[in-house]
Amino acid sequence: MARGFFITFEGGEGAGKSTQIERLASKLRDKRYDIIVTREPGGSPGAEAVRHVLLSGAAEPFGAEMEALLFAAARSDHVEQVIRPAVERGAIVLCDRFLDSSRVYQGVTGNLDPDFMTAVERVAINGMMPDMTLILDLDPVEGLRRATARRGQDVADRFEKETVDIHQRRRNAYLAIAENEPDRCVLIDASKDQEEVEHAITDAVFAALEARASAGSRARADA
Amino acid sequence: MARGFFITFEGGEGAGKSTQIERLASKLRDKRYDIIVTREPGGSPGAEAVRHVLLSGAAEPFGAEMEALLFAAARSDHVEQVIRPAVERGAIVLCDRFLDSSRVYQGVTGNLDPDFMTAVERVAINGMMPDMTLILDLDPVEGLRRATARRGQDVADRFEKETVDIHQRRRNAYLAIAENEPDRCVLIDASKDQEEVEHAITDAVFAALEARASAGSRARADA
Repeated sequence: MARGFFITFEGGEGAGKSTQIERLASKLRDKRYDIIVTREPGGSPGAEAVRHVLLSGAAEPFGAEMEALLFAAARSDHVEQVIRPAVERGAIVLCDRFLDSSRVYQGVTGNLDPDFMTAVERVAINGMMPDMTLILDLDPVEGLRRATARRGQDVADRFEKETVDIHQRRRNAYLAIAENEPDRCVLIDASKDQEEVEHAITDAVFAALEARASAGSRARADA
Repeated sequence: MARGFFITFEGGEGAGKSTQIERLASKLRDKRYDIIVTREPGGSPGAEAVRHVLLSGAAEPFGAEMEALLFAAARSDHVEQVIRPAVERGAIVLCDRFLDSSRVYQGVTGNLDPDFMTAVERVAINGMMPDMTLILDLDPVEGLRRATARRGQDVADRFEKETVDIHQRRRNAYLAIAENEPDRCVLIDASKDQEEVEHAITDAVFAALEARASAGSRARADA
């Protein structure tokens, strides 16, 4: 059986990742694709266990390196128990946040050496790089507005400067990843309405799946 | 202040590591060296916490990769909280088991890809390679005999073939490490009596400390 396809969704708060993942999953299922939807942090029993340790604050007295390695242990479990087996049996995996979230969130905090971060990322994914990463890009003020509205809070006219600043730095970090890895990353304008965003995502994903299928059939024809 | 010195002790069961570490520590303290004695697994609060999770069996349902990364998180904490700060303030750190134990024990089990193991080792120690590793080498049957006697058990005339085999494979793995990294590793014949072993260790350690001190003073004279 042909190898499946591994798609990750990235972007800041309020960019609409979970809505768009649901819509894409439903559209792909209509086309009879085998679809797995998963998310980080968590996504497998081992990853959930480590996540609880991290969220409980039990690891807080320890160093940033140990915390990064605990996150790596969680991601490793998610990859080995869920993502890799699904991709190997030919499924399409849609994952809400993956390694780029770690890069962006840890990179913005800036308390770890970049070489160390790269080495930790390598062991966590152990070769399981996404085939495609959809980065839902949105102005952070608009994202914060949507996120607070969704939580039923009053929508602020203004957000604290520090809050906007950190979200802006994350957005810039995502844009830098998209620019550095154009073969893997597709930047999606998430300021558009949901249908337009859905359309852009569907176009990108179906184009990639068709390119892959025709590359596969060419390879078979050559054989 | 000059950088300290990081010495690890390795070897199978019954080789006499803890006795020899105590004796060396006492001899070095007599010479007014600042000495830290520590051990793995454990050695720091974070490492102990992770160790308890691992020993509780809570991580058992998860994969070998996640287990290796949890061990790496423990070692990382031990390195960053205990070993590196001590070495940086100029102390001599004596550590009972370190990365070679992982290599030997995981290598003999053989359930992890060697490239993955190397990458995990790299993030766990983050550059904190031992300056010197003393490998206490002993015939496994003799080691098992000593270890059972120490535990107050009847000393067997014969051990199960499987038990001896696995200890023999570990011994061979240690011998291979000593051969591959002669600058770091010193092989100590642990079949000799304790005084002779102590003498061999003291000779090796004092020679290394003197070589380092004279290299340091040459460097200062050049400056």
